[in-house]
Amino acid sequence: MAGNRLPPYDKLVEQINRLPSLGRKTSERIAYHIIEMGDGEVEKLVEAILSAHNDIHRCSICGNYTDKEICSICADPTRDKSVICVVTRPRDIMAFEKNRVLKCTYHVLHGLLSPAEGIEPHMINIKSLIERLKKGGIKEVIMATDPSVMGEATAMYISKFIKPMNIKVTRLGYGVAVGSELQYADEMTLSRSIEYRNEI
Amino acid sequence: MAGNRLPPYDKLVEQINRLPSLGRKTSERIAYHIIEMGDGEVEKLVEAILSAHNDIHRCSICGNYTDKEICSICADPTRDKSVICVVTRPRDIMAFEKNRVLKCTYHVLHGLLSPAEGIEPHMINIKSLIERLKKGGIKEVIMATDPSVMGEATAMYISKFIKPMNIKVTRLGYGVAVGSELQYADEMTLSRSIEYRNEI
Repeated sequence: MAGNRLPPYDKLVEQINRLPSLGRKTSERIAYHIIEMGDGEVEKLVEAILSAHNDIHRCSICGNYTDKEICSICADPTRDKSVICVVTRPRDIMAFEKNRVLKCTYHVLHGLLSPAEGIEPHMINIKSLIERLKKGGIKEVIMATDPSVMGEATAMYISKFIKPMNIKVTRLGYGVAVGSELQYADEMTLSRSIEYRNEI
Repeated sequence: MAGNRLPPYDKLVEQINRLPSLGRKTSERIAYHIIEMGDGEVEKLVEAILSAHNDIHRCSICGNYTDKEICSICADPTRDKSVICVVTRPRDIMAFEKNRVLKCTYHVLHGLLSPAEGIEPHMINIKSLIERLKKGGIKEVIMATDPSVMGEATAMYISKFIKPMNIKVTRLGYGVAVGSELQYADEMTLSRSIEYRNEI
């Protein structure tokens, strides 16, 4: 490996390094592991990569991940199709579904607006959302993007297009998390919990 | 994705999660990335994985990684073959080679003895080292395993087999790193730097 370079090793480390969250050291550790893995294990890994990449695509209605034309949520007749919950990524749908909080449909933006990172409106799934709303039948759009600066900015930006359509636009409530301790809550969260206080 | 599970996604996350240093969140982030990658990029990744796994193996003499029968170091006629530097992993050879510190040959253990982790002598590359020494011509073995408890224990264990062969066994010098600040050195390192002090 040392002395002359070992090209297959270098190429593998380089490819792994391009994956998100992986620094040089971890990439080398993983490359090492792949070299030492059994043949059957490597086959399983490669098979999983190719299947996921080739079989999974975005639902033509909402952008959720599916291996069919339309995702299981859009295809579900028991859903309240008059309410659309807009999320940042497919994983966020899982959070709501796991907790059985919503019985509506979703729309996945696959990103958030970010001038700093050069992410502009046309680069995320906004147009298809507007087109979906234009088809009619929608009573409410819940902006469930990340509770962050970018998530907030994206929610506000999109809501400006929806309001003129006479569709109710709502934003997730901010506040202290259930079961949390007030003394550990951050300043922003605490101030929101006051701002969004409800009469009892 | 939510609602009904998406098997190709789950399988990919599961396979990635098995790689070292990767937790659930990072595995999901990587799976997402693989789904969204271009077809050409996925091909490159899979190609790199298969090439490295199929082409790279252990040098039949020293255990270093190579895509040939014998690694470039063992094949190098300018090397001092009477001195063997024993390291934990192939990456460690790179450290010595990068710094042009040694011009000898190496032996890679591919692990360290660890009762706690169930790593026993027969599970690392000790036998092939002893067999190499039995062939004769070796003047010195430098134990360059990790400067850690396990590296130390492994060095001591192996040295007991080498001493009776009348071969000089040495261990890397411990001490403070060049350019470091004494006030930031840990206790063990400082006490070793006193223990291994040299007369000037």
